[in-house]
Amino acid sequence: MPAIEFTIEKKIEGALGRAGALKTPHGEVRTPAFVPVGTLAAVKSVTPEELQALGAQMVLANTYHLYLQPGDETVAKAGGLSEFMGWNGPTMTDSGGFQVFSLGFGKGKKGVTKVLRDAATAHENDTATEHTKLVKIDDEGATFTSHIDGTTHRFTPERSIAIQEHIGADIIFAFDECTSPFLPHDSMKASLERTHRWARESLQAKRRSDQALFGIVQGGRYADLREASARFIGGMDFDGFGIGGSFDKNDMTSIVALVNGILPENKPRHMLGIGEVEDMFEGIERGIDLFDCVLPTRLGRNGTILTAQGKYDICKKEHAESFAPIEEGCGCYACAHWTKAYLHHLFKAKELLGYRLATIHNLYFIVHVVDAIRQSILDGTFFEYKKRFLETYLR
Amino acid sequence: MPAIEFTIEKKIEGALGRAGALKTPHGEVRTPAFVPVGTLAAVKSVTPEELQALGAQMVLANTYHLYLQPGDETVAKAGGLSEFMGWNGPTMTDSGGFQVFSLGFGKGKKGVTKVLRDAATAHENDTATEHTKLVKIDDEGATFTSHIDGTTHRFTPERSIAIQEHIGADIIFAFDECTSPFLPHDSMKASLERTHRWARESLQAKRRSDQALFGIVQGGRYADLREASARFIGGMDFDGFGIGGSFDKNDMTSIVALVNGILPENKPRHMLGIGEVEDMFEGIERGIDLFDCVLPTRLGRNGTILTAQGKYDICKKEHAESFAPIEEGCGCYACAHWTKAYLHHLFKAKELLGYRLATIHNLYFIVHVVDAIRQSILDGTFFEYKKRFLETYLR
Repeated sequence: MPAIEFTIEKKIEGALGRAGALKTPHGEVRTPAFVPVGTLAAVKSVTPEELQALGAQMVLANTYHLYLQPGDETVAKAGGLSEFMGWNGPTMTDSGGFQVFSLGFGKGKKGVTKVLRDAATAHENDTATEHTKLVKIDDEGATFTSHIDGTTHRFTPERSIAIQEHIGADIIFAFDECTSPFLPHDSMKASLERTHRWARESLQAKRRSDQALFGIVQGGRYADLREASARFIGGMDFDGFGIGGSFDKNDMTSIVALVNGILPENKPRHMLGIGEVEDMFEGIERGIDLFDCVLPTRLGRNGTILTAQGKYDICKKEHAESFAPIEEGCGCYACAHWTKAYLHHLFKAKELLGYRLATIHNLYFIVHVVDAIRQSILDGTFFEYKKRFLETYLR
Repeated sequence: MPAIEFTIEKKIEGALGRAGALKTPHGEVRTPAFVPVGTLAAVKSVTPEELQALGAQMVLANTYHLYLQPGDETVAKAGGLSEFMGWNGPTMTDSGGFQVFSLGFGKGKKGVTKVLRDAATAHENDTATEHTKLVKIDDEGATFTSHIDGTTHRFTPERSIAIQEHIGADIIFAFDECTSPFLPHDSMKASLERTHRWARESLQAKRRSDQALFGIVQGGRYADLREASARFIGGMDFDGFGIGGSFDKNDMTSIVALVNGILPENKPRHMLGIGEVEDMFEGIERGIDLFDCVLPTRLGRNGTILTAQGKYDICKKEHAESFAPIEEGCGCYACAHWTKAYLHHLFKAKELLGYRLATIHNLYFIVHVVDAIRQSILDGTFFEYKKRFLETYLR
């Protein structure tokens, strides 16, 4: 018996999208759903009780981070991720591939796109960047330097799965190679072959029957490679699928539609690392069931508040004496108790409570938008809802 | 009618201590009580709901800080401190005197005692220290430099009371001169005369009838000055009293007994800035009703956990795989849900949730110790309880 059970309740007419339900050993997730990220077994600043109250159904933790700190064996001794962090609900872990790949990103002043382009060039020329000095990838796995203490570590598909089995989330992911989307076609093809080899090895390495394993479709911006990857990974005995890789905003929708048109319809699909509202509408329309992203929580800690009218910066002076709720009409805990003026004050004073209240609001917002999208699918009004929502949100 | 009403329920036989109740416009406080500090209208990292759940009855905010940020008029426009911060209970503000005095403390590497000794010497020699450059005190008030933007400000008794009336706490304090306890007798006497003058001016400046005003007894380590101050301040029409000044640990008990033997018995007494458990036992025995201190919250954010068995450092390696509660038998929210191992992990990873859980535990601990002391007074077992508790706590 598989560890999870996925059922489709209703489809979007004329599109790949669907509303469904995903049963896991730690409870059911109504899909589509946004999954908050708790990198180090904690969604930054908030408790599991607050996550539950704001409507979160599942938490994603990062294998790379937990492996280094506190160590997957400590999490195992605690009884697994859910027990360790006190979240009595479904969990997932990524494979560590993306984190290993992105080591060194954000350390300099360069934007991610610049780093990705440099990485692509360095890959072609076989030269080192700040990034490639921290990670060496070969056909069997990746050797990398810990961002904490500079020690050397190695992940292989077998190792990633073993670590994820220690951490013990309900859904785990195959180890994949994340590359720059700017790699030329032949290099991307070679990388994809590695990802496919590692997918097979991940499947073979799996021992626990109470965890579901998702395969990851890669292929960058190349339609032929994405198609090949969807066929290859989709044909394997995974319990669900992730779509990975840093997307170019323009290619994203066509790539997702292409991939989900190929992947088996009856298994859940997770879009890795996507959390912009407009992207989630596009993804859901094209058959994505799950999203995770640090964006709403990170924006919150930086004082950027998400609302149905778009984003705003709580630190701006205009909010200093606004005694209205953080978002008018919002039902979250923060909006029920405090004003913009108070949140503005907390941010200006760098009070820890501010990061927490903004996190609660932003997660509530994003979780409820995805819930409302789900409802619109059930009601057969997805396209109207999408149009109406985005008109206000993006204006 | 006075803004507050204080009743004594039971006294400690053969001592000055008592258990009582203090009615304020925002609710009743059972005394003795520990009052958590919410410097900037927020107890760092926790919500009012959490404060209430852990047993806190009252919150103290700092006039100096709120005056600078967000400004007392903003707090007034929000409806006052209680409304602004969402704490539906009693509040107090200090007068700003101590903060103005302590400007520049802790900026260098020197300990507080060294800074206080330097301040005393500089005062005697009329020379400048890092500290005296930031604050100039004259007979009418204090001119000081904002620690935020370097702008110049001036507090007088009138100004302090006006600001505290804007902030709108239930209990406010007279503006006093805080000096180094190491000042020689004649300088301390001069400073005390200033404090007494300012006490009279504070009383005269008071306009609101829905706030109680506490006078502050000073006099440093000199028994004759403390006695004179207790007689002078105690004879005035204050609603209660604060005992201020940085104490020398050895003098503290005798000074408190001396002062409280003189102050009118039927009015509440607040010991300013004291939060060590052993000091609270001594203070309560000698007639103190209220304490405030940043110690339990600051210790918590630094990973120092208070328990009935004494303090420990959660960051120590020995806690990395201890899956016991933070304190065995503790009823706080943090102990009910998480282990030492998880809290250790949060601190090592600098996760914001860690500061919050340690704060909740430490405040719960300190509030409940004082509650238990209160109960022991009601039960007539104060001295037994004190002996038993401190034997374990200080061993």
